[in-house]
Amino acid sequence: MIDKTTIIVHSGNMDKLYSALIIGDGALSMGMESTLFFTFWGLERLTKGGLDKGSLSMGEMDMNMFNSRLKQANVATLEKLIQDYKELGGKIIACEMTMEIMGVKKEDLREELIDEYGAIGTYIHEARESKINLFI
Amino acid sequence: MIDKTTIIVHSGNMDKLYSALIIGDGALSMGMESTLFFTFWGLERLTKGGLDKGSLSMGEMDMNMFNSRLKQANVATLEKLIQDYKELGGKIIACEMTMEIMGVKKEDLREELIDEYGAIGTYIHEARESKINLFI
Amino acid sequence: MIDKTTIIVHSGNMDKLYSALIIGDGALSMGMESTLFFTFWGLERLTKGGLDKGSLSMGEMDMNMFNSRLKQANVATLEKLIQDYKELGGKIIACEMTMEIMGVKKEDLREELIDEYGAIGTYIHEARESKINLFI
Repeated sequence: MIDKTTIIVHSGNMDKLYSALIIGDGALSMGMESTLFFTFWGLERLTKGGLDKGSLSMGEMDMNMFNSRLKQANVATLEKLIQDYKELGGKIIACEMTMEIMGVKKEDLREELIDEYGAIGTYIHEARESKINLFI
Repeated sequence: MIDKTTIIVHSGNMDKLYSALIIGDGALSMGMESTLFFTFWGLERLTKGGLDKGSLSMGEMDMNMFNSRLKQANVATLEKLIQDYKELGGKIIACEMTMEIMGVKKEDLREELIDEYGAIGTYIHEARESKINLFI
Repeated sequence: MIDKTTIIVHSGNMDKLYSALIIGDGALSMGMESTLFFTFWGLERLTKGGLDKGSLSMGEMDMNMFNSRLKQANVATLEKLIQDYKELGGKIIACEMTMEIMGVKKEDLREELIDEYGAIGTYIHEARESKINLFI
């Protein structure tokens, strides 16, 4: 077992992307390894321009208010969080099956962020040896 | 600790059922054990005819488009995935408390798929010794 | 690795709160330690009066029907479950970043339930040594 965090990012909601990236960045900062496996709606956030397009998972607050509160609280943008994630050595895997289902091509994706294109076997291989596994 | 994947299937959304079953089948194919614990809306998918009734967790695509893309991408149906899951030796537990809350009787369920009817203690017992734990 | 369950409670949906608390109470009853880390919409359920305000994560049943079925099935209220959780020695952490984003102050929260106010480092520290990790 390796000191690693592996997260399936299934959701495309902005608040859940925040949770996934904050956990990934936090794990890396504390000396753990980290893998994010983007699938389904999560993968759409890795398309060009996709990081800004997520809605919120609950209707209790609207997007404008959420964004202005993030600014007020000095929380980094998703773009900054994902750049930090890469700089800290975090790994990103794009789900090939989702690409086929959603009709997403490699050139639609921000390929500079993606370390590997993989299937379920790739995920199990990562997760099986991880101390922290989450589905978001 | 056993080389096992234990997943709580709380959601009844079709895309999340896909994730749960693909992970379960993948784990089994790679020699792991697997347990799916169906609860709340997830359990409703195990009622007769229930596997076809799930909606999508995000409104970015409608159900007809999703289904036709699954076909185009040659992705197996949920029915095929759950049959494979059983053939590969996967275990399915139905949550008894959910049955009481939702008014679901054993005869409403596809009993041939279910290995055990259990409560939270059954889940903790499985999860506590599993390498991969997820809540979907 | 410690015999502990650590759950991120991101969702504010009532049915997901039920799952989180039933798992936490179950883990404690079986001799495990348990930590619930409340963040985003989940944290709002810890504000005064917040535990009654969650909606359901799926529209297949309305709130009144859900509540009356819970009563019929003799399922404890969320209030009872969280009181049991504390009495059994469960730990609750409130996410400080969420408090800033949502504009939630300590005096808005039910402080008697909260053991610690923490950030992502606090979570990683707990999760890294836990046998069961979930994101709800």
